[in-house]
Amino acid sequence: MSAYGLEEIDGDECDTLLRSQTVGRVGVDTGGRPAILPVRYALLDGDVVLRTAPGEKLVAAMLNRTVPFEIDDHDDAEHTGWSVLVVGRAEEVVHPDEVARCKALGLEPWAGEARDRWVRIRAEHVTGRRVHRTDG
Amino acid sequence: MSAYGLEEIDGDECDTLLRSQTVGRVGVDTGGRPAILPVRYALLDGDVVLRTAPGEKLVAAMLNRTVPFEIDDHDDAEHTGWSVLVVGRAEEVVHPDEVARCKALGLEPWAGEARDRWVRIRAEHVTGRRVHRTDG
Repeated sequence: MSAYGLEEIDGDECDTLLRSQTVGRVGVDTGGRPAILPVRYALLDGDVVLRTAPGEKLVAAMLNRTVPFEIDDHDDAEHTGWSVLVVGRAEEVVHPDEVARCKALGLEPWAGEARDRWVRIRAEHVTGRRVHRTDG
Repeated sequence: MSAYGLEEIDGDECDTLLRSQTVGRVGVDTGGRPAILPVRYALLDGDVVLRTAPGEKLVAAMLNRTVPFEIDDHDDAEHTGWSVLVVGRAEEVVHPDEVARCKALGLEPWAGEARDRWVRIRAEHVTGRRVHRTDG
């Protein structure tokens, strides 16, 4: 029987992992029901930036709330994996200079045609953990 | 420029996808801060079952609350992907017959050595969506 351990991932490695992925998940409440939804993202000054559509329910559910954003990866065969959690206030990006910087991130939309609203999740709390085998 | 569409995944396919994976994510509030945490899971009568350790903060944060559970997969190169969301009340499995059925699911723990508490998330709301290219 294998044994597994949990270890913390430090801030620098969390940052590296956040830069290595393009899809994460946000937690929101929509209509009083909690949800976790996958989103494409990029980083701007260490914060998480999402691109979405006007009128998207996701935006209304996130704005000015403290929301969780998560990325992870795992190896089914090895039963190992890691995750990084960013928790912070979600704000709409409205200043033209900041919108221009978001557009320059190369974050193509996944779905929809006129996805031109930007949400920034302030990286107020960034934590990571890794599950690994302890017996080789 | 490519175009993408969002389509709903029906209940049967959500069930098939839930059976195809072993790692998902739950949304919980811990200490007043929202979090999304990866967990190993299995299905029991269509509900999501997690195995965790006594004293695990995750259990206290989940029990008797309506929580979201999510699985997803995506193709970075194609910018396509799918996700399934299960939302329902989290209950600790305490009846010996039900604990025995949980143990028979073959759900090995990832981390820790004495993970012998079982949490069942009732599949009250199950929804899925897929993002796909619409221009081939």
